[in-house]
Amino acid sequence: MMLKKNPSDKKIVFVDFEPIGRRVEIAIGETLLSAAQSAGVELISICGGVGSCDSCLIRLVDGELSPHTKIEKEVINSEALTKGFRLACQAKPLGNVKVDIPPESLAAPQRLQIEGQYVDVEVNPIVSSIDVQLEAPSLSDLRSDATRLLTAVEEQYGNRLRIYHSVLFDMSKRLRNQGWGARLAVRGSNIVAVLAPETKLLGLAVDIGTTKLAGYLLDLATGETLGMMGAMNPQISYGEDVISRIAYTNDHPEGRATLKAQLIDTLNGMVSDLCSEVNVSSDQIVEVVMVGNTAMHHLAVGLPVRQLAVAPYVSAISESLDLPASQIGLHVSLGASVYLPPNIAGFVGADHVAMILATDVWQTDRITLAIDIGTNSEITLAIGDRLLSCSCASGPAFEGAHIKDGMRAAPGAIERVQIIGDEVRTFTIGAQPPVGICGSGILDAVSEMLKAGLIEGRGALSTDDPRVHGEGAERAFVLAPADQTGHGRDVVINRKDINEIQLAKAAIRTGIDVLLNECGVKYAEVEDFIIAGAFGTYLDIESAVRVGMFPDLPHERFRQVGNAAGTGARQMLVSADRRGTATELVERVEYIELTTHAGFQDEFMKAINF
Amino acid sequence: MMLKKNPSDKKIVFVDFEPIGRRVEIAIGETLLSAAQSAGVELISICGGVGSCDSCLIRLVDGELSPHTKIEKEVINSEALTKGFRLACQAKPLGNVKVDIPPESLAAPQRLQIEGQYVDVEVNPIVSSIDVQLEAPSLSDLRSDATRLLTAVEEQYGNRLRIYHSVLFDMSKRLRNQGWGARLAVRGSNIVAVLAPETKLLGLAVDIGTTKLAGYLLDLATGETLGMMGAMNPQISYGEDVISRIAYTNDHPEGRATLKAQLIDTLNGMVSDLCSEVNVSSDQIVEVVMVGNTAMHHLAVGLPVRQLAVAPYVSAISESLDLPASQIGLHVSLGASVYLPPNIAGFVGADHVAMILATDVWQTDRITLAIDIGTNSEITLAIGDRLLSCSCASGPAFEGAHIKDGMRAAPGAIERVQIIGDEVRTFTIGAQPPVGICGSGILDAVSEMLKAGLIEGRGALSTDDPRVHGEGAERAFVLAPADQTGHGRDVVINRKDINEIQLAKAAIRTGIDVLLNECGVKYAEVEDFIIAGAFGTYLDIESAVRVGMFPDLPHERFRQVGNAAGTGARQMLVSADRRGTATELVERVEYIELTTHAGFQDEFMKAINF
Repeated sequence: MMLKKNPSDKKIVFVDFEPIGRRVEIAIGETLLSAAQSAGVELISICGGVGSCDSCLIRLVDGELSPHTKIEKEVINSEALTKGFRLACQAKPLGNVKVDIPPESLAAPQRLQIEGQYVDVEVNPIVSSIDVQLEAPSLSDLRSDATRLLTAVEEQYGNRLRIYHSVLFDMSKRLRNQGWGARLAVRGSNIVAVLAPETKLLGLAVDIGTTKLAGYLLDLATGETLGMMGAMNPQISYGEDVISRIAYTNDHPEGRATLKAQLIDTLNGMVSDLCSEVNVSSDQIVEVVMVGNTAMHHLAVGLPVRQLAVAPYVSAISESLDLPASQIGLHVSLGASVYLPPNIAGFVGADHVAMILATDVWQTDRITLAIDIGTNSEITLAIGDRLLSCSCASGPAFEGAHIKDGMRAAPGAIERVQIIGDEVRTFTIGAQPPVGICGSGILDAVSEMLKAGLIEGRGALSTDDPRVHGEGAERAFVLAPADQTGHGRDVVINRKDINEIQLAKAAIRTGIDVLLNECGVKYAEVEDFIIAGAFGTYLDIESAVRVGMFPDLPHERFRQVGNAAGTGARQMLVSADRRGTATELVERVEYIELTTHAGFQDEFMKAINF
Repeated sequence: MMLKKNPSDKKIVFVDFEPIGRRVEIAIGETLLSAAQSAGVELISICGGVGSCDSCLIRLVDGELSPHTKIEKEVINSEALTKGFRLACQAKPLGNVKVDIPPESLAAPQRLQIEGQYVDVEVNPIVSSIDVQLEAPSLSDLRSDATRLLTAVEEQYGNRLRIYHSVLFDMSKRLRNQGWGARLAVRGSNIVAVLAPETKLLGLAVDIGTTKLAGYLLDLATGETLGMMGAMNPQISYGEDVISRIAYTNDHPEGRATLKAQLIDTLNGMVSDLCSEVNVSSDQIVEVVMVGNTAMHHLAVGLPVRQLAVAPYVSAISESLDLPASQIGLHVSLGASVYLPPNIAGFVGADHVAMILATDVWQTDRITLAIDIGTNSEITLAIGDRLLSCSCASGPAFEGAHIKDGMRAAPGAIERVQIIGDEVRTFTIGAQPPVGICGSGILDAVSEMLKAGLIEGRGALSTDDPRVHGEGAERAFVLAPADQTGHGRDVVINRKDINEIQLAKAAIRTGIDVLLNECGVKYAEVEDFIIAGAFGTYLDIESAVRVGMFPDLPHERFRQVGNAAGTGARQMLVSADRRGTATELVERVEYIELTTHAGFQDEFMKAINF
């Protein structure tokens, strides 16, 4: 085993945390818990690392750890010990190791939602590899490089292929440098990359959220996720939400080009980082799948968005797109294609399609509601063979916007609130002193304030609680007093914040109710209630039900699935069949336009109150 | 008729010279001869414009000219008069006019070879138009713009089409601006442009010569050539010939990109000029055909050329290419494609294929030799069903390079030489005082010097002629003495110049001989001898035969066809069938590599002497 030395002469080893795909360097002698902390992997450690609980349980996958401690032998049962389970606070790597973190040991879902390492779908990627060895040209064999390659493939495999033009840019050099041997990436009847023999073909799946981007690097042959990474969508500086970004492009002649360039630059940075992390070349990425809401989709590939912001809000294209990655400026293999699944409507995009795909909503025989919560929320109801979808303008409150002390889910954001008698308990991301409130914290706060009688049914703040300060618009409930916060000011919830939450939850609830009414389904008949997306994963179901955003179903019917759009994108990356399924399901969807739906206004007004 | 006034208050009119497609503004009162001179159109005018000959005969096509003069009634027969024939030196436009110049009235073929206005091929372009009128979207019809369009096409025409991604960039805006009516450009099963109703679909054909570019704008529906234009290849500043340009790309990491960008910039300028001239929009250009030698082809589309310059000189690709015009940066319709026909070998490119196509060599039943003379000359022999091609390194002497007083075919270049007794007559382009010699002048000079006994069989200059001056390397024959030249120095032919011509003509003759020997064909059996390209059009056949470059055939078997490559490109632009023919003919060609051909050296050495 290769060991590196650090400046203080301690031996350095790598720890790979799976299924997160995060790697960290630590010195020999440090525990896995310490390694996890360096890597920003939030392992639960109830006892604080003294070995008195088993909350930091992990499993060794590869490499060697220090022998079992006495504490481990007491805490872990013998069967689990033989399977490689260890306590992260006890075990110390003796060399490079790879460990697997069971879901129950993760303190909170990662900010970038992490699903299992394998995408649960049969692998049949649209790009596959074949290997060839050619004769070098000579004065008695003057065929062009392309003819030579195509003829060899035909002779060895019986297929007459073509070569993408962009592959030719460096094919001649590659063939010569590789001694005329190559691994070819083949897409349909086209050669899309000429790689060195034995090179793995990789794919990239990207979820373009209005706020966040998630990128996944996959081995196309096995479907394995080799790495994943999150980033903020840089278009945020041109507008927090979709509508303000569209307005920006309407007001600036180069606006569309600017937003596209910003996004693609960030994606290129992500590709570069992902590739270094996994130690591969971006040339190996021969296929890309991108999902996003319709506006993000249009902006990513340079399509006009003006018509998305004016009634009747139609997309330029709803069909799937397949285009050269080079055309949109992605720095992957020169001949790579980008596949963008179809969208359903101007405000129900391919990310929702990917979510329906990944959660099996398209093929369930149970009455299922599936919801993606964001500035715009998309909801689908599956009943029998029917799929009904709608979009509701839930607003940016759950992203922390339009809230006095709102912030994104970043360190110092209050993400959980409990009010127990006089005590207000807040829990922040990264256990930092509070500096603001993120979406799940706001929802919790309103829910707990309702429970504590601090908010009445129409949303007004209680007039007789000493924790409610100020007058008029300044009137607010203090979640964290100035002497406990990171910036020395109170973190509060005011009347207007409550009103924002009322609008948001009413929009979502109305969407749910309209879909259910359309099919005559009662709440109690909903068998599965799937909640996707970052906020959807962090939110407390009980809080969501108490404020009236979700109907009051038995808790076990709710399922928080994290970034299902990313998983759906990965499925379409490694499975050509899944692309067909996506197209079919979009054709099946009955789209309900809420703004023109009879009874929408009444339902909405009813849903405003708590 | 709209008349413009110029600053001195004279009325200004346009004169359009066909088939050249050149327009010039002149003041009322000026003659057509004077207009031709302003336009750089070189009409023959033996008598100097006094009306004593009929060499400046032209034909009125449109508009009104001054009444017939007495001279015209004397010189032109009555039948010709009724057909609209006039003397350019006599007739004065009374308004905007269009005139046609018969070939015999052109002093010299245009620098950019001009064929007839119509390309002689059945028009079945790969891109055709269909017209649609759509319903506008509404809250009860939320289909995306693309779905709306595709469904309408399917309903009206029964075809399920797709839309090129780049068409979507401005389709939504166009459809709205056009009141949801459109003329669509359709290529196979793809919509490649959404244009305003009634818009003509245009195509662009480009011949990329190492030295010169020629562009042609055609109406795809009729096959009519609407405009044509020539320009210098800007890559010249990076190397006169193909090999030096390849060396430049080998020595400069960004060299390939630079050469491509320079070329594409110039082509974009040409497109812009052509479109203004014909008063159309570049958006109407929905299809492009490009031909060029293999190196020009590779550089135009960003392919590597390194391997073209090292044995065994193979191209990256010989198959035809079909790629988005936007990918190479051409400013035409966003969804336009560029078709590049197949090439035959590293030094026998698609321009030669286009020439074989345009001259019917591919389907002749006569024994035919077809030759494109340039720095590299390509020769094809057609006999029965066989087509044999080779390439010979004739060098740049006929482009005026490597010749002491050589220059390109520009004003002041000696293009014709006669030696009659003691008199040396030179004829220059533009009738300017001589400043140098272009290819056809050099060939004439050597031929005339041979005839006059000034050069002996091995190429040495006569030692006893007073017009031969100097000693050693300085020894030279004076074509134009200093007191008659534009720069006040002698214009001469020296021993080294003669040697360059010997190498060039020997290379070409060897190519001819090898092909003929390969098939056991005797000179006298060659029924047609076709010479294409600029130099090939200007050269004097008798001179070419005297120096031994061409075999001594009856004069009527030679045919100088001008820029046949450009004509072939135009054929492939307006005829999908011709593309198929090009691919088939390339598969039929037997390529003979001269450098490794047994007997090549012997043949070449034999051909060196006069």
